[in-house]
Amino acid sequence: MVRNILAVPVERVEQGCSTPAQDLVAVEEPLEIRIAERVVSITMRTPGNDRELAAGFLFTEGIISGTGAIQDIRSHRNSVTVDLLPGIDVDFDRLARNFYTTSSCGVCGKTSLEALTAQGCRRFSQDAPRFEAALIPELPKRVRVAQKVFERTGGLHAAALFDATGELQSLREDVGRHNALDKLIGAEILASRTPLSNRLVLLSGRASFELLQKALMAGVSMLVAVGAPSSLAVEVAQRYNMTLVGFVREGRFNVYSGAWRIA
Amino acid sequence: MVRNILAVPVERVEQGCSTPAQDLVAVEEPLEIRIAERVVSITMRTPGNDRELAAGFLFTEGIISGTGAIQDIRSHRNSVTVDLLPGIDVDFDRLARNFYTTSSCGVCGKTSLEALTAQGCRRFSQDAPRFEAALIPELPKRVRVAQKVFERTGGLHAAALFDATGELQSLREDVGRHNALDKLIGAEILASRTPLSNRLVLLSGRASFELLQKALMAGVSMLVAVGAPSSLAVEVAQRYNMTLVGFVREGRFNVYSGAWRIA
Repeated sequence: MVRNILAVPVERVEQGCSTPAQDLVAVEEPLEIRIAERVVSITMRTPGNDRELAAGFLFTEGIISGTGAIQDIRSHRNSVTVDLLPGIDVDFDRLARNFYTTSSCGVCGKTSLEALTAQGCRRFSQDAPRFEAALIPELPKRVRVAQKVFERTGGLHAAALFDATGELQSLREDVGRHNALDKLIGAEILASRTPLSNRLVLLSGRASFELLQKALMAGVSMLVAVGAPSSLAVEVAQRYNMTLVGFVREGRFNVYSGAWRIA
Repeated sequence: MVRNILAVPVERVEQGCSTPAQDLVAVEEPLEIRIAERVVSITMRTPGNDRELAAGFLFTEGIISGTGAIQDIRSHRNSVTVDLLPGIDVDFDRLARNFYTTSSCGVCGKTSLEALTAQGCRRFSQDAPRFEAALIPELPKRVRVAQKVFERTGGLHAAALFDATGELQSLREDVGRHNALDKLIGAEILASRTPLSNRLVLLSGRASFELLQKALMAGVSMLVAVGAPSSLAVEVAQRYNMTLVGFVREGRFNVYSGAWRIA
């Protein structure tokens, strides 16, 4: 059984009175991701779905092109080892540079956007509407119902996958929002269900460049963030014809890009 | 004038009606940090206080020991160049390994904690109470009054420095919570006001290992997070005798470690 929440003793202070109590916190532990013997990343994450996290990370960072590259993937405690098929080469120097630059960015927003195209990202076509507007404010509620750990700790980010009818297909949680999305995408990769067209991804928090990049790599054309997007997130969405929704509240939301996908 | 918010066109959808509107988003742009000619990090940040961000980052990651190491620090667009004094050496290999491993962590929480001691972090003494309990729920309100950009975009994290009487001394905002804290600490370093003893730092969001590590490096013995701490954040606080407060709400909060500093 994976330990993803932990009970800790606290002093609960209310109206000047202090009472000893127990609080549940989200577990944060390092995870080492190895390709064969070589450590390619150590990330702070919430234990659970570690193989998915590793697969999603390697895919969304452009290190592997899909599950076809993977011969074996196994996890042991805080370590995941990925063996690639013979003939699959990884440019470890490029890899080091990439992490160094926080996911393929240059020294301005424009360079960062162009790096995505260089990484193989293509514009989505300007296709037909496929998601009902009335559905969107319902999505965070459906996640909250399913998101048991978050309810208890308030300390986890969630990433959720929905089909076009608004049915929740998958949900992953983590102390790191990049990890929650990598776990979600990694599960689909390992089940050979990418690209994630005709589906949408909901993020429980804000949308930044890196989250858009990961969604784009996985073929997600519609991203719904409960929180605010950054300027560069909006630019990525516009340039790649993604639909970006933000600030989802009771009965309302903002569409920052690609409004045509919402009926 | 630094551009840290940007107006973008949106479709505002409410009760099924869509209206074109303008929304303000927080600017996210890459910042390159160089030591002399060498790029040591590229981070996605909100423009503004770039020199402080670079100084804070280099200090809290253990690359420089203080402002005494810096000969010159200058920013130009999305780049900050730091020249160190003659005789100050940086182990670039160690540096690459460190970033690689997301700030000096190993393969379990315990290793991560021990890495902090190896980096020179020492336990705080179990000193006298110095912050009034009634003060704590007031702090987020004081930040919100000062935090103009956040009010407008909802997209920025804040880090704030308070003295023992609850007076706001400094506030920094960023799309990245690590950056907000690095900017706050960097400003104090550049003004030779570290270690930050007898003061407390408030974070607008959650508290994770990396944020505790940065606070510890700067000598902050009391950290107040509006959101939830992670398990490893609680462990860092306990091990180093820091006071960690979380879940600050109207009239109440939880103390996870070091309750004796609160009267």
